[in-house]
Amino acid sequence: MTPLDSLLTCLRFPSVSTDSAHAGDVRDCAEWLASFLRDSGLTTEIHATPGHPIVVARNVHRAGRPTVLLYGHYDVQPADPLALWQSPPFEPRIENGIVYARGATDNKGQLMAHANGLRQTMAAHGDLPVNLIALFEGEEEIGSPNLGPFLAAHRSELACDVVAISDTGMVAAGVPTFTYGLRGITCCELVVTGPALDLHSGIFGGAVANPAVELARLIAQVHDDQGQVRIDGFYDAVRPLEAWEREAWSTLPLNDAEILKLTGSPALQGEAGYSSVERLWARPTAEVNGMGGGYQGPGSKTVLPSHAFAKFSFRLVPDQDPVVLLPQIEAWFRARTPASVTLSIRSGHSGQPYAMDPHSRFGKAAQAALRETFDGRDPALIREGGSIPIVQSFKDILGADTLLLGLALPDCQAHAPNENFPLANFEAGQRLNRHLLEMLARA
Amino acid sequence: MTPLDSLLTCLRFPSVSTDSAHAGDVRDCAEWLASFLRDSGLTTEIHATPGHPIVVARNVHRAGRPTVLLYGHYDVQPADPLALWQSPPFEPRIENGIVYARGATDNKGQLMAHANGLRQTMAAHGDLPVNLIALFEGEEEIGSPNLGPFLAAHRSELACDVVAISDTGMVAAGVPTFTYGLRGITCCELVVTGPALDLHSGIFGGAVANPAVELARLIAQVHDDQGQVRIDGFYDAVRPLEAWEREAWSTLPLNDAEILKLTGSPALQGEAGYSSVERLWARPTAEVNGMGGGYQGPGSKTVLPSHAFAKFSFRLVPDQDPVVLLPQIEAWFRARTPASVTLSIRSGHSGQPYAMDPHSRFGKAAQAALRETFDGRDPALIREGGSIPIVQSFKDILGADTLLLGLALPDCQAHAPNENFPLANFEAGQRLNRHLLEMLARA
Repeated sequence: MTPLDSLLTCLRFPSVSTDSAHAGDVRDCAEWLASFLRDSGLTTEIHATPGHPIVVARNVHRAGRPTVLLYGHYDVQPADPLALWQSPPFEPRIENGIVYARGATDNKGQLMAHANGLRQTMAAHGDLPVNLIALFEGEEEIGSPNLGPFLAAHRSELACDVVAISDTGMVAAGVPTFTYGLRGITCCELVVTGPALDLHSGIFGGAVANPAVELARLIAQVHDDQGQVRIDGFYDAVRPLEAWEREAWSTLPLNDAEILKLTGSPALQGEAGYSSVERLWARPTAEVNGMGGGYQGPGSKTVLPSHAFAKFSFRLVPDQDPVVLLPQIEAWFRARTPASVTLSIRSGHSGQPYAMDPHSRFGKAAQAALRETFDGRDPALIREGGSIPIVQSFKDILGADTLLLGLALPDCQAHAPNENFPLANFEAGQRLNRHLLEMLARA
Repeated sequence: MTPLDSLLTCLRFPSVSTDSAHAGDVRDCAEWLASFLRDSGLTTEIHATPGHPIVVARNVHRAGRPTVLLYGHYDVQPADPLALWQSPPFEPRIENGIVYARGATDNKGQLMAHANGLRQTMAAHGDLPVNLIALFEGEEEIGSPNLGPFLAAHRSELACDVVAISDTGMVAAGVPTFTYGLRGITCCELVVTGPALDLHSGIFGGAVANPAVELARLIAQVHDDQGQVRIDGFYDAVRPLEAWEREAWSTLPLNDAEILKLTGSPALQGEAGYSSVERLWARPTAEVNGMGGGYQGPGSKTVLPSHAFAKFSFRLVPDQDPVVLLPQIEAWFRARTPASVTLSIRSGHSGQPYAMDPHSRFGKAAQAALRETFDGRDPALIREGGSIPIVQSFKDILGADTLLLGLALPDCQAHAPNENFPLANFEAGQRLNRHLLEMLARA
């Protein structure tokens, strides 16, 4: 079976984790993947969970070598809306050197690149240069509900020195990219209540507070005119950008013109004193993800609404701590709520921001592997603005940093119709796996 | 047929104007009402309209007497939710001197009080002391779509000196109430758009404007800390409260404690320097009737919304003019919109504020009639915070002021289950009709 055949086979499983009708397909994919790894010479087990199975493969571990945990996921997002696909999502099509299928990039293309890299090294040398644990789960697209408990239950068998994942992005085609930081998050929902029921705005308007207006006044106080968050203590723990980061990020292809194109916004806007990528990757935010209140249908209905809500999320950066911040945020809102309305706050989910030192020994080894893989080109050192909860799980439960060595292109259409992955990236991923294990062995 | 029998008969017609299944009931009610008026000795016609019929009755008009147009409506709101009625809405029930039925107060009870007053005067004297035009429509609860065209098409036959309506409220049981002013209204909907689609708030949050936040910042600028509307020119045409109004309103039963009870708000809030009733009746407002944007479902979805909207209505007072104000309001919002988002504004409906001079000859006559009706008690002189579009139609098309002589009690449950009307008010309405026509004849 050629590497390409193995990729196409893997892509044909409709392993949609969120849809219970596909539970059998998810299991079939896990079993096929396990047999592929077993055939490659690795000891492989399929672990049942309360949800979808986790596949774990390893070589024979020997003392004196670093232990590397390679993570990937074989489940995929649903393919809807089907009508927008140019070819069926689970019948991979290759055109101009690009494979189109659900999961092509996220994450089967990247996972199978690594799996083939392992197979090639095993075939050539009968072993790998490191102690390897490959851990491939089937629930990433539904929030990995069983990964944390699995890591905790198998803490000693999964003990490792470092984790490696290819499930993030490259800043542009051909530009090797090493991600060493992620933003964290904390969320809360505010509900401002005034009158007991919606009131006639003619009969009562002017004498009682309007909860929609009062909520807007709370929201409007969150940022100052320089785009900074006004909440007391919000920036206290923020780690300043280092000079090398600002320098490195200033020349990336992800510039203002590109962000304007990607977002379709009329103009950019953000915190004064920072470039757009600095705002995205190294500065915390306060965003309203949703708000509502009163009449939302067509035309007008002249009510004075009983209540209005706003769903806030705050993206956090090292070394902000959601556990510390969330109560401060809630107290700040409460202190600004007038007596004419009541404020209730529902705390939402939180995740710690993440940063590893790209100049650590494993960080340098990962960059050397990327350089080797991509014709000697220096990797871009970036952070990302989103969160990857599993990275925090690896840190918290296994105590290991994660090397994020993404192969996804900006236009890969992950989670969208016509998801795709260039075969060049698939081949680069196989090389990357080989170089990475070599470099980590020497680190 | 006793007056009470006539009321109960009228209440038994399920003349729900909004429901086409009840079109026959509405017509039956119009025909019964016309026959009642005809039997009273008035010349009566039923005018077909594109919707429900208009009943017009008149005595023989003679020179040298004022012409009075008496308006009422025989259509009613739907009775839903039926389960909350203690007895069937179209089977009137009398308990402790109160009649319970849909339309009991709004407006059949008040209309039939006047119709019986006319009948009694005609029976006693063979004529009325004024030239009377009774105009009873069947579409008030659906916004009177055919009344304006009817008034315009019959302008000369409907020419009158003054209009009288009993379809407003009394400040409390037993307190005769004369309403001489109404607020107007103008509406607009703001839509703030940022990115072309909802964005991932991790990937893009911080570098582009959030339309929900920018909309909130616009809303928050509308009022200053004293509760005044900041929009340039907003108060330019506002007629100041007169000393006698502030004096008269300061002792009304509609005080702060009552407004708190009626609204269920935690505390009152409004424009500094004015009492609550002054804020409700004589000061303009800016209210958000509805707003929305982004994710509104349960839990959280960390999107940066593409757009957010707010539906504004502005209650206006004499002599503000919505035709002048609305462009000023829209320009004010536009001037405050940052370049990072676009603002689109949809203009909504408008209505002029209304005021007549309660110390005019007809105003004084109406108050004398109320005093006579309610055991010599001085009527409360009030305005109302809402709008009554037909009053503006009478002013615009017929050039006549309207005397608003309401008999509805605060707890009448108009538009709600268990609508009710005290028989004492029904009897007072009959007396009021007789005294009103006498006093207007002498005015």
